[in-house]
Amino acid sequence: MKKTTVGIFGGGQLGAMLAQSALSLGIKCVFLEDAPNCTASHFGQVYSSNQLDEFLQVADVFTLEFENTDADVIAQINANNDKRCYPSDNVLRVAQDRLQEKTTFNELGIDTVPFIAVYSQADLTKATAELGLPIVLKTTCGGYDGKGQYIIKTHDDIDQAWQQLGDSAPLIAEGFIHFSNEVSIIAVRGQDGQIKSYPLVENHHHNGILSHSYAPAINLDNQQQLTEQANVAISKLLEHFNYVGVLTLELFVTENGILANEIAPRVHNSGHWSIEGAVCSQFENHIRAVVGLPLGSTEIVRPSMMINVIGNYPNTSEVLAIDNTHLHHYCKSERENRKIAHITLMPYNERMKANIRAILPNKMGLVE
Amino acid sequence: MKKTTVGIFGGGQLGAMLAQSALSLGIKCVFLEDAPNCTASHFGQVYSSNQLDEFLQVADVFTLEFENTDADVIAQINANNDKRCYPSDNVLRVAQDRLQEKTTFNELGIDTVPFIAVYSQADLTKATAELGLPIVLKTTCGGYDGKGQYIIKTHDDIDQAWQQLGDSAPLIAEGFIHFSNEVSIIAVRGQDGQIKSYPLVENHHHNGILSHSYAPAINLDNQQQLTEQANVAISKLLEHFNYVGVLTLELFVTENGILANEIAPRVHNSGHWSIEGAVCSQFENHIRAVVGLPLGSTEIVRPSMMINVIGNYPNTSEVLAIDNTHLHHYCKSERENRKIAHITLMPYNERMKANIRAILPNKMGLVE
Repeated sequence: MKKTTVGIFGGGQLGAMLAQSALSLGIKCVFLEDAPNCTASHFGQVYSSNQLDEFLQVADVFTLEFENTDADVIAQINANNDKRCYPSDNVLRVAQDRLQEKTTFNELGIDTVPFIAVYSQADLTKATAELGLPIVLKTTCGGYDGKGQYIIKTHDDIDQAWQQLGDSAPLIAEGFIHFSNEVSIIAVRGQDGQIKSYPLVENHHHNGILSHSYAPAINLDNQQQLTEQANVAISKLLEHFNYVGVLTLELFVTENGILANEIAPRVHNSGHWSIEGAVCSQFENHIRAVVGLPLGSTEIVRPSMMINVIGNYPNTSEVLAIDNTHLHHYCKSERENRKIAHITLMPYNERMKANIRAILPNKMGLVE
Repeated sequence: MKKTTVGIFGGGQLGAMLAQSALSLGIKCVFLEDAPNCTASHFGQVYSSNQLDEFLQVADVFTLEFENTDADVIAQINANNDKRCYPSDNVLRVAQDRLQEKTTFNELGIDTVPFIAVYSQADLTKATAELGLPIVLKTTCGGYDGKGQYIIKTHDDIDQAWQQLGDSAPLIAEGFIHFSNEVSIIAVRGQDGQIKSYPLVENHHHNGILSHSYAPAINLDNQQQLTEQANVAISKLLEHFNYVGVLTLELFVTENGILANEIAPRVHNSGHWSIEGAVCSQFENHIRAVVGLPLGSTEIVRPSMMINVIGNYPNTSEVLAIDNTHLHHYCKSERENRKIAHITLMPYNERMKANIRAILPNKMGLVE
């Protein structure tokens, strides 16, 4: 193999964990990131956005850690004959637009919540009639952790909702569904088209932020059937986009099977358990795919639980005193609602969970 | 935990793997190393030996990757009240002198091959009489991979042996023993005196260089009894030296149990399997001990085989195409007899071993 340098758009913890995997394979990473002292800075050179040209020159192949990376820049790389970015701009444009995203799901035969595009207040009134109340009105782009959305409970809310979000039209109106669980499936596709997927992971959120995940999922009926549905769905997406690398699909589990919520064209927080818990982690598999190496096994080594550390650090010594804990510290400063570390328990049990809960400054809904 | 920086004497692959473990715990490493572009340079700042003062200033606690680190420098650090180096100079001085090393083993009740100190040619003649022929005459310091030693088969060899090595006296004359296996035990001792040890590892050498290891050992009779003997021996050593960190003890298995060969006061090549194969690797446990964190579990996850890549790189793609391979590439240039990478198979089987053998440029005695 010739010496390869991977250029990563973004230098946060995802970039850092990609680089850790890459370095073990003898592959260097560089990062495009404006945040000073970013997590990835410990693992390779960081270029600021005004050094974009240098960054594009120094790396042989590119990838990204954030779906809101500028799709035009990625398109430009891939318009060139000698360098590629995986994933490509096609999937970014879809992932950046809720309307396109859910439309693509449906076109591929992947079920979603019912939704309607909203271009005007009249459309919105029509949507409430067709979907029934309540509905959630959302901007198609941007928005995060409950921002850029409005829950319409009665017809009296329509005016207010339109006033607040109308300027960002087109919007998307989504019907409410009852779901029992949130799960995700992470799969990787190689440059040769080979697909491997990790087991279905069960995700628990708190205030819209991932609190903890179980790999494999533990609270599902029909787990095998749901896993098959999820595999079919993500395989369709990977092939539709001629995707290379790791793709994540977030899903709701309903009485009638799974509904696709959104895709993340990158390694994902719900796959962090795979560093210890899978034979080959999502990070290593993404790097392998991006540089054209054979994919590694996605088989589970032992059942794992991943817990996000949000806002404030626990005492490291107290974390490591608990059996079988693996701490991943992002070397980021403390800030409310910020993901600053994660802890993997492999295997895990109720006592270990209780011990972790007792020492976390922010319990993050870790109550079960 | 306050932000800690660990200063590592040496910046090769051992330093690099220590730093990878440290960074996941939020601990920075810096290195003292003169080799440009050393493996560790991807994981922290490297200081050259003429920047020793800066290096000593910037780190909070120190450790080393090489037993021939200058013991006087280490002693000076530990003479100071505010900073420590683990391990300390006491064990380095013993590990750097074969005569002191074997004498210490025997004083602690740990068996070795029979040996005699040789200060003169008359001593040597006496040693051949007491130990019987053949014997191996070795320098007490330095010497590596068969250099600095002479095998005396007949009395006629004595003159020649003394001519060659006499200038380096005192020397050590060792009797020959018949051993069935070479094994090692790696243990870690925390600042609180807690000791944890990894299972007995079976080592296979080729031309004096470690070729491959099995963890746990697979070809031993009385494995449990030998493990107990090894644990007793290494615990005595850890306590004798008031040791903090990972210590390795290399052993011969004979009909009458184990004989201690030598210690390495550091993480060791025969423990590389532990990155994937143990709950907490030798590298993470060494860092935990050095910075005063609780030790992690040394329990085996799955049986593992570690294969050294010596001299020339195999094709990365061919390595990763084999199931369950983990490649650790040291980013070093190719050179005869140089350890430039290792591959861990977890779990492993005969087919995988044969596949690895087929693609390694240097088979390194990987024939079983």
